[in-house]
Amino acid sequence: MNHIISVLVENKAGVLAKISGLFSRRGFNIESLAVGPTENKKISRITILVNAEKQGIEQVIKQLYKLINVLKIQELDPSNIVERELVLVKVSTNAKNRAEILEVVNIFRANIVDVAKKSLLIEITGTTSKIKAFTDLLDTYGIIEIIRTGKIACSRGNKKD
Amino acid sequence: MNHIISVLVENKAGVLAKISGLFSRRGFNIESLAVGPTENKKISRITILVNAEKQGIEQVIKQLYKLINVLKIQELDPSNIVERELVLVKVSTNAKNRAEILEVVNIFRANIVDVAKKSLLIEITGTTSKIKAFTDLLDTYGIIEIIRTGKIACSRGNKKD
Repeated sequence: MNHIISVLVENKAGVLAKISGLFSRRGFNIESLAVGPTENKKISRITILVNAEKQGIEQVIKQLYKLINVLKIQELDPSNIVERELVLVKVSTNAKNRAEILEVVNIFRANIVDVAKKSLLIEITGTTSKIKAFTDLLDTYGIIEIIRTGKIACSRGNKKD
Repeated sequence: MNHIISVLVENKAGVLAKISGLFSRRGFNIESLAVGPTENKKISRITILVNAEKQGIEQVIKQLYKLINVLKIQELDPSNIVERELVLVKVSTNAKNRAEILEVVNIFRANIVDVAKKSLLIEITGTTSKIKAFTDLLDTYGIIEIIRTGKIACSRGNKKD
């Protein structure tokens, strides 16, 4: 089962290595991970998507709390979050199929961010399933490169956390 | 100086811990990092934004090549890339200022992804400077939470990499 864990940490060298080490020692493979600064520059947020049993995750969360640079840990409830991912897709094109691809881009409300003779670079945000549908469609034209940010998520409503 | 390093790795437990450990042992603080799957499910891409001297980065890249699960490393040339980041911003609102905030959202081509009584959740993608301008503006209304993916980047044109 997939779990989304959001961890607030002090923005210091080595914190990420400690946290990712904790997962790997238990044999958990991190599906995606995103680290970025928060509203406070001294604090970073790490969003981790990991596939594991509930029990294993609970153990890892307990151990995360023991790390001194970890400030807060939250397992997000999939039924009450907005989840998003950003993906850049470079797809090969020619004069013939460009219009077709542009149509797909419009339907998915994606954006063209770069155009070259034989390729288009497209930006899309959304849930994992939307992005899968989009890349599956583009795959028929030939995907040159996919670059994903990994998932981030935020609880709905006004809970201050 | 900021460097953007794109690393292709085998999608195995422990690879991220090794790589982030390599940076932290040299005292480099990773500003942002994004890990996600690529077009090949066995391979993940890690995009790292790190602030360091050119010499130090060259040393780290050499050491990265020595890790067995690392397949390819690329330092991206800032003058020839498209860089993007996705940010979710939860901002506090009231009946009075909601219209004002919606105006800002439209100007920046951001999207509202959730509405609650006292807050709005906004999704925005763009370069770091665009996102800074946007969050600075929203700060006057009261930002409850910011969640960032970290930067990803793709070279322009049709170079197959």
